[in-house]
Amino acid sequence: MEIKVVKKVLDANEIMAERNRQMFAENEVFVLNVMSSPGSGKTTTLVKTLARLMPGIRCAVIVGDICTTNDADRLAQSGAPVIQINTDEFGGDCHLAAHVIEKAASDLDLSAVDLLFVENIGNLVCPAEFDIGEDARTVVLSVTEGEDKPLKYPLMFRECDSAILNKIDLLPYLEYDREAAVNNMKQIHPGMPVFEISAATEAGFDPWIDWLKDRVSAKLEG
Amino acid sequence: MEIKVVKKVLDANEIMAERNRQMFAENEVFVLNVMSSPGSGKTTTLVKTLARLMPGIRCAVIVGDICTTNDADRLAQSGAPVIQINTDEFGGDCHLAAHVIEKAASDLDLSAVDLLFVENIGNLVCPAEFDIGEDARTVVLSVTEGEDKPLKYPLMFRECDSAILNKIDLLPYLEYDREAAVNNMKQIHPGMPVFEISAATEAGFDPWIDWLKDRVSAKLEG
Repeated sequence: MEIKVVKKVLDANEIMAERNRQMFAENEVFVLNVMSSPGSGKTTTLVKTLARLMPGIRCAVIVGDICTTNDADRLAQSGAPVIQINTDEFGGDCHLAAHVIEKAASDLDLSAVDLLFVENIGNLVCPAEFDIGEDARTVVLSVTEGEDKPLKYPLMFRECDSAILNKIDLLPYLEYDREAAVNNMKQIHPGMPVFEISAATEAGFDPWIDWLKDRVSAKLEG
Repeated sequence: MEIKVVKKVLDANEIMAERNRQMFAENEVFVLNVMSSPGSGKTTTLVKTLARLMPGIRCAVIVGDICTTNDADRLAQSGAPVIQINTDEFGGDCHLAAHVIEKAASDLDLSAVDLLFVENIGNLVCPAEFDIGEDARTVVLSVTEGEDKPLKYPLMFRECDSAILNKIDLLPYLEYDREAAVNNMKQIHPGMPVFEISAATEAGFDPWIDWLKDRVSAKLEG
């Protein structure tokens, strides 16, 4: 019963996502859906990423939270247009659905955007189930969360096109098997690029930025 | 439309939760629902807690994961009966629902259990919405997740009877305002006890264990 109901909601979401995808294609916007647990460092990663890409690449951000505008405030300091979604208005939703993205995107001048980041709700489960019309998906996992998370939350890692292993500056203070974490990701999603970074220190940022630029160029010049 | 559907599922859950609550009352079992993001340290906290409570208090654990039996394997070393739920069988559910707990509890000899821990799916959003027939709820937040999470995920902190701030052994290596984190929790839920601990070193464990023992006694001897 419950599963049937969820299936129906997902079908409606697929239709909306396809409409978003057309809208983004017409406006030549590359959309990256960034997902993670709460506190993995999505916002700090995006703040540092925006600083490296702009103004060469014109960026914008849609950021989802159940409550607060903390993340939007931090991201807006980059100068990029930032739209905050509070899912409290939608019953405290645990993910961003396609219709919510459509509404948020209508507040942006898409003709002036090359790369739209969507910072999803902090949740390693539900957001992976909802297509929002994006071009690519990145999951952020921090080393303080343990090595086994890719095995425990496989859908997220299977659905993403790249992964970031964040907070590597904390490795000296943790009992953490970095190789095991990366191997677990590759086991769930063979061939997926994994970027080991510290958003705090920007260690390891170059390959991540290069990957992102390549993906954006491939769509916009392709 | 979507909200209506969710409401219907929740109503059915309430009925099942009430049935669980009766079953636990008849068997004189105290049930604690333990929730957190992935990687906050629920399992390590429970492993250390079991070691302190047993055999004086007869414990059992129901542990929910989407995939893997990693946590159950670790918890079983305590000697407590452990039931693993993989929600993969239920469509990869992002929370434990009351009917799932009923099924899992039927595999336990409840007459030989004083305290049943339910380690919920790693998710700071959805589990807070589902009553499973428990007596109390505890949320675990780790200091690596940032100070603002209580404000961003208020339902979880509002619905819990106590909170654990975990991984305080990492504080020297983080820019973290411990007081702000605790204040944010108290702002969302005035009067809620907050236990600042390290599950790794067992620092700060005594007040947490005392609180738990008091709550169990109040039900079983009350």
